[in-house]
Amino acid sequence: MNDKKNIMPHGQMSCPVPIMNHDTVQLAHGSGGKLSAELIDKMFLPRFDNEVLARMEDQAVLDWPGGRLAFTTDTFVVDPVFFPGGNIGDLAINGTVNDICMSGARPLFLSVAFIIEEGLPMETLHRILLSMEAAVREAGVKVVAGDTKVVPKGGCDKIFINTSGIGLVPAGIAMSAAALRPGDKVILSGTVADHGMAVMTSRESLSFQSDIKSDTASLHGLVEKMLRASPSIRAMRDPTRGGVAAILNEFAKSSATGIRISRDLVPVRSPVQAACELLGIDPLTVANEGKLVAVVEAGAAEVVLAAMREHPLGAEAVLIGEVVSDHPGMVTEETAFGGTLILDMPVGEQLPRIC
Amino acid sequence: MNDKKNIMPHGQMSCPVPIMNHDTVQLAHGSGGKLSAELIDKMFLPRFDNEVLARMEDQAVLDWPGGRLAFTTDTFVVDPVFFPGGNIGDLAINGTVNDICMSGARPLFLSVAFIIEEGLPMETLHRILLSMEAAVREAGVKVVAGDTKVVPKGGCDKIFINTSGIGLVPAGIAMSAAALRPGDKVILSGTVADHGMAVMTSRESLSFQSDIKSDTASLHGLVEKMLRASPSIRAMRDPTRGGVAAILNEFAKSSATGIRISRDLVPVRSPVQAACELLGIDPLTVANEGKLVAVVEAGAAEVVLAAMREHPLGAEAVLIGEVVSDHPGMVTEETAFGGTLILDMPVGEQLPRIC
Repeated sequence: MNDKKNIMPHGQMSCPVPIMNHDTVQLAHGSGGKLSAELIDKMFLPRFDNEVLARMEDQAVLDWPGGRLAFTTDTFVVDPVFFPGGNIGDLAINGTVNDICMSGARPLFLSVAFIIEEGLPMETLHRILLSMEAAVREAGVKVVAGDTKVVPKGGCDKIFINTSGIGLVPAGIAMSAAALRPGDKVILSGTVADHGMAVMTSRESLSFQSDIKSDTASLHGLVEKMLRASPSIRAMRDPTRGGVAAILNEFAKSSATGIRISRDLVPVRSPVQAACELLGIDPLTVANEGKLVAVVEAGAAEVVLAAMREHPLGAEAVLIGEVVSDHPGMVTEETAFGGTLILDMPVGEQLPRIC
Repeated sequence: MNDKKNIMPHGQMSCPVPIMNHDTVQLAHGSGGKLSAELIDKMFLPRFDNEVLARMEDQAVLDWPGGRLAFTTDTFVVDPVFFPGGNIGDLAINGTVNDICMSGARPLFLSVAFIIEEGLPMETLHRILLSMEAAVREAGVKVVAGDTKVVPKGGCDKIFINTSGIGLVPAGIAMSAAALRPGDKVILSGTVADHGMAVMTSRESLSFQSDIKSDTASLHGLVEKMLRASPSIRAMRDPTRGGVAAILNEFAKSSATGIRISRDLVPVRSPVQAACELLGIDPLTVANEGKLVAVVEAGAAEVVLAAMREHPLGAEAVLIGEVVSDHPGMVTEETAFGGTLILDMPVGEQLPRIC
């Protein structure tokens, strides 16, 4: 029973390495785009196959005596550690709080696990911890478990933080990307690409740096407001890695419906737009850390939108498109000039270590 | 609300960096020993203060409608990734399963989060995943949430894995290191130092390498057997980083009792003993990954011991000492020659990246 020595050779013989497009792990395998999906589908899912994981939501919703719980995990490796609008600390708290919220759950408990490079100044760690403390308070959660590993200099880059979290799913709420129906409306809670471009431009020391700030924020209050406004929200996700484009493609794929959006309805701050143009990046593929995309029954869209706009994090919420029966599994965008383009799943990694 | 830009400067001004023994993070801060305790006490606990975290157990036991749950997190950065008896994959599963079990909980759900260095061979990842799959099956748990980050070459060392986990705590079970009473017996489930020395000797390519194997294993079956045998188990922990010495010191400190053990009762395999002597390392301070230390009411010790010995992972279980009212907060050991020594909390990190 305890004899593990045969597991590897046996496993190797009985289960050859899946055929992948690459022999080695690429940056793009962590991008949230097509190569990430390949890694998950071919390498991970066959090993950890179960009905919860197969749903491929941003959080697991688990049956539990007395009430379902939402469970999620995320690791943060952002570079630089400090960027305009936040740092790896509040990002790590907000990111996991948001993944829990997207199921409609109330976030309650977090774990925090650090990997720290030997030699990190204690003062840097302290600044990160202060931001985490503030974010934890803002989100109304408790950090109840932790772990710290220190690796020798060069073993990691400064600091990585994993947060996992648990939330309570209220009775009657069961969101799912598979539930989308033609006619449903697609709502975006605000401007896109702020986080990704804040990190990117601070990394490259570009001159417009000071105008762009990460949107890192915890969405629990906004989600609460939305759920109180209407029970007719089909699904929500926060468009982090891969941006809005990735989320919409995941929605279309999971529900086997089409999604059509109007690109000119998507709000982008002008310095962010300028930075994207300069770097040749589509803002719809850039990470956000304080935004959500919700798909809502047509009849409830205006009520939900109005509720969102009453909340500071949803003040710029906008209806950007709808679910259609055409082109199932695909996302299209109507351009300002009347054309229609396919908005594809981002392939690779334009911006490594963005979160 | 979303304006995070003031958090850091404000926090910095109002909360100066705690006075630590070092200005930078040292390897020893991740050792599980004295410096780890300093980091936790001065840097982490003041930021994330709550009653659950303050208990300082290896897992959080959380009230939940319908039944308490145990929640824990652990990151694995072991170097080398493959070592005699296991690899980072099964280690990451077993480690978190064991932390859950030590509360008496039944492990149910795990999350798995990878940080992968760009360029890791897909075949290496596959071998790790196969071991994880086998360990997951053996432990009877489900992996229900995951995350993958890829960092550029040099950004981390090959692969790090975080696992977090949730277990169900059966009604009536409430273990706590604070519950120890003089007269209680201290039981160790088997030989010590196998894991640490397996990793250490494989890393250094020493000649006795082939005789030493990691004990990595999931303890859920052994714990189940113990709990069925008797409800009188006060506390259990698995002696990983810092070894048995660290666990016993934690027990003594949490309960404000003394602990006295007989060193010559602690089983150590002879090649492990030889390696420890050669390297000048006390086996009681070396990490184990498939062992537990239990403190049991005196009257139940024989019953629990007998039950343990019926399980493959407890076949060599042994009573190594007892809780005493002398020297509260301290651990002493009687030597084979009749002397008494203090068994102190290990100070630093003899073996970095052991798990």
